[in-house]
Amino acid sequence: MELVTVREIYRDTEKYLNQKITVGGWLRSVRDSKTFGFLVLHDGTFFETLQIVYHDKMENFAQVSKLNVGAAVIVTGTLIPTPEAKQPFEIQADEVVVEGASAPDYPLQKKRHSFEYLRTISHLRPRTNAFQAVFRVRSLTAYAIHKFFQERDFVYVHTPLITGSDCEGAGEMFQVTTMDLNNIPKTEQGGVDFSQDFFGKQTNLTVSGQLNGETFAQAFRNIYTFGPTFRAENSNTTRHAAEFWMIEPEIAFADLKDDMILAESMLKYVIRYVMENAPEEMQFFNNFVDKGLIDRLKHVVESEFAHVTYTEAIELLEKNNDKFEYKVSWGCDLQTEHERYLTEKIFKRPVFVTDYPKEIKAFYMKLNEDGKTVAAMDCLVPGIGEIIGGSQREDDYEKLLARMNELGLKEEDYGFYLDLRKYGSTRHAGFGLGFERCVMYLTGMSNIRDVIPFPRTVGNCEL
Amino acid sequence: MELVTVREIYRDTEKYLNQKITVGGWLRSVRDSKTFGFLVLHDGTFFETLQIVYHDKMENFAQVSKLNVGAAVIVTGTLIPTPEAKQPFEIQADEVVVEGASAPDYPLQKKRHSFEYLRTISHLRPRTNAFQAVFRVRSLTAYAIHKFFQERDFVYVHTPLITGSDCEGAGEMFQVTTMDLNNIPKTEQGGVDFSQDFFGKQTNLTVSGQLNGETFAQAFRNIYTFGPTFRAENSNTTRHAAEFWMIEPEIAFADLKDDMILAESMLKYVIRYVMENAPEEMQFFNNFVDKGLIDRLKHVVESEFAHVTYTEAIELLEKNNDKFEYKVSWGCDLQTEHERYLTEKIFKRPVFVTDYPKEIKAFYMKLNEDGKTVAAMDCLVPGIGEIIGGSQREDDYEKLLARMNELGLKEEDYGFYLDLRKYGSTRHAGFGLGFERCVMYLTGMSNIRDVIPFPRTVGNCEL
Repeated sequence: MELVTVREIYRDTEKYLNQKITVGGWLRSVRDSKTFGFLVLHDGTFFETLQIVYHDKMENFAQVSKLNVGAAVIVTGTLIPTPEAKQPFEIQADEVVVEGASAPDYPLQKKRHSFEYLRTISHLRPRTNAFQAVFRVRSLTAYAIHKFFQERDFVYVHTPLITGSDCEGAGEMFQVTTMDLNNIPKTEQGGVDFSQDFFGKQTNLTVSGQLNGETFAQAFRNIYTFGPTFRAENSNTTRHAAEFWMIEPEIAFADLKDDMILAESMLKYVIRYVMENAPEEMQFFNNFVDKGLIDRLKHVVESEFAHVTYTEAIELLEKNNDKFEYKVSWGCDLQTEHERYLTEKIFKRPVFVTDYPKEIKAFYMKLNEDGKTVAAMDCLVPGIGEIIGGSQREDDYEKLLARMNELGLKEEDYGFYLDLRKYGSTRHAGFGLGFERCVMYLTGMSNIRDVIPFPRTVGNCEL
Repeated sequence: MELVTVREIYRDTEKYLNQKITVGGWLRSVRDSKTFGFLVLHDGTFFETLQIVYHDKMENFAQVSKLNVGAAVIVTGTLIPTPEAKQPFEIQADEVVVEGASAPDYPLQKKRHSFEYLRTISHLRPRTNAFQAVFRVRSLTAYAIHKFFQERDFVYVHTPLITGSDCEGAGEMFQVTTMDLNNIPKTEQGGVDFSQDFFGKQTNLTVSGQLNGETFAQAFRNIYTFGPTFRAENSNTTRHAAEFWMIEPEIAFADLKDDMILAESMLKYVIRYVMENAPEEMQFFNNFVDKGLIDRLKHVVESEFAHVTYTEAIELLEKNNDKFEYKVSWGCDLQTEHERYLTEKIFKRPVFVTDYPKEIKAFYMKLNEDGKTVAAMDCLVPGIGEIIGGSQREDDYEKLLARMNELGLKEEDYGFYLDLRKYGSTRHAGFGLGFERCVMYLTGMSNIRDVIPFPRTVGNCEL
């Protein structure tokens, strides 16, 4: 169907002004007096609405006047400027064709609904202003990330979702099976007989594509993943979802410094892209969701990120221990309150904290020369705390093996990973960006359930 | 680390010629005579390799000469033109620093390995020519798809992977659970007590995001999904994987014709993008994997796709029933042999087959006025058969409900889906493109296991 979109009308107004055009969309409101009426139409392509004036010269004037909010219509008419009105133009309709009526019990009436309520109608909430804004920004953010990496010739790798490795924190993983749960096949010893499962072994949903990603970085040099990730964590917070998307770049011939440069450029690129491509949406968030959002993001784009080692950060924080619920000391993990204090109060801009104690970081991180810390980095941003976590990877076969042994990891489970250190090992590094956290950061939305189209959390798997 | 990439050297040769540069990469071969030697280096950024000449003036001449294939090196030297040699230039090295040696048992020696063998070392195979080409094209294809839709202001929607709907062919779905398989909780009646599972209900991995996608199309008008999809089908073929990626656009205020226009433009856009951005890789496929590939793809880009109804197609095929293993007649589903005959022999170009009998298509497809067929379309391309399947969706509440009842689908499972027909229903349509099938089509690779980084098939879930 050849329809002019509301986006085209706003972005290229001159082209359509005083022209006869046809638009299609859904009604946000219907007001009529005896001889004419107003429709407010939203067509899903643009944040703003379009006003339509219709008259009783139209055969179906009465039908149109009785339409409910949510009805779909196709309108043909002339776009005329309205210099004295709130909106810059309106359509004087010659014809309003009803594409699909809306039942009177339409749940989205013209009033403000709470986010909590809207979560119960996840199939309809994308029709509201707030979720139009959220999900368009989510889409643009995803594309900005692809664009950033592709412009730099990174190879996009689809790491697997179903994984046979039960080695990293299996307790928090979802199991995947085709076995009949009413009648689980058993081995002679009485355990579950996974040889009868679809893959002939125990399988789970992935918690990270990093190790697989590393194998591709050792072939393509620069790669990134962008895919779903799962955590079966029983935590019902505003920041945890059981299913979320993650971006994990991995770069070879690169150290922690290169990693931080990459993370900083990526964040700035994404913020800039979204602000340029969704100005109306960002203004909405700034006005109604998180006042000060735009200034904060602009400040991030214009700042050079600060750098501080974990050891220095602890010294700085210890002086302010009276302000924290959890007191810090060397060796402890940083909580959100500490992270936010560092980036908001001390540095007043984004900051990379580097070189964490090895005990609180993963086995694959590169041991520093001090033997105590690893070449890890967390990127902290005002308003949220940690948004990115990364590290240089241990590229020395012997050191990696020693660390695995210390932690009781089985060599046979990591044969492929050790091979990377055996055949042409290179300095390499990477990081992980939780996509939803990034969208929350860009929009100011405070509940992860409100930035995922159909969120999955403990006890909740609707639609 | 500041390294010039092999891609930069090939794409912007003038800039680097006769300059001192530093490159890093992995050795594909090492040859030495008494006083000098040659290294062939691949850095993962470009399909072609770079030749390096090194001399015994270098302190570590002997060390370098003893390097094995696969070793990682960093080379500094001058890029000089070699007009009389096979390769256009080479590096005269001042320095070769060994970044990581390669053990002598490196599995990728300088000889041709079979795809079957390479599948057993999926962590190393991306280092070979064939898989460098496959996975770069896969990455570019993914990006081309995003670019196509984003340039047209489609909203990218992440539909959920874990789903609570067990209604569409549950037999072929993977179950997702956190219950202890050794000790499944039971209800009083003796069934599985899913109320004790993570989501408090039975959950599976999605087989399609379409129904969720439709809810977003009724809000944003034009949307697309691009994410993983799962089938627990016990079929060990060259075309089936248990985990694959799928693209599912959905467009509102649109009918089957709009849907076909979209599919045709998308396919042409993606082919063009890949041919322009990976000419070396495409040449490789054309020479070594599928002779005639490039001509075939060019032909597709230049053709206007044909259109034929299922009923007409059956008539055409029936005349050739002697050529087919499965004879066709009205009402039967088309097999690959029929699809290929239509597109390769009869139309000699891509063809849309439309208006299939409702019995062989899904419940949500729009019933045509004949009451027998539905507004479905399959896009068939030479060399492969069906690559895209789509339809206009039933947008009439009563007709949809009637069809659901005919098929025994429960109304309560589809409340959200019926709501879309109750509140501002619009003509709408969409299609599904199997991403791996698309990559196979673009590369000529004939086994789906060879276009997925870490393939999952029945009995196989490695790394």
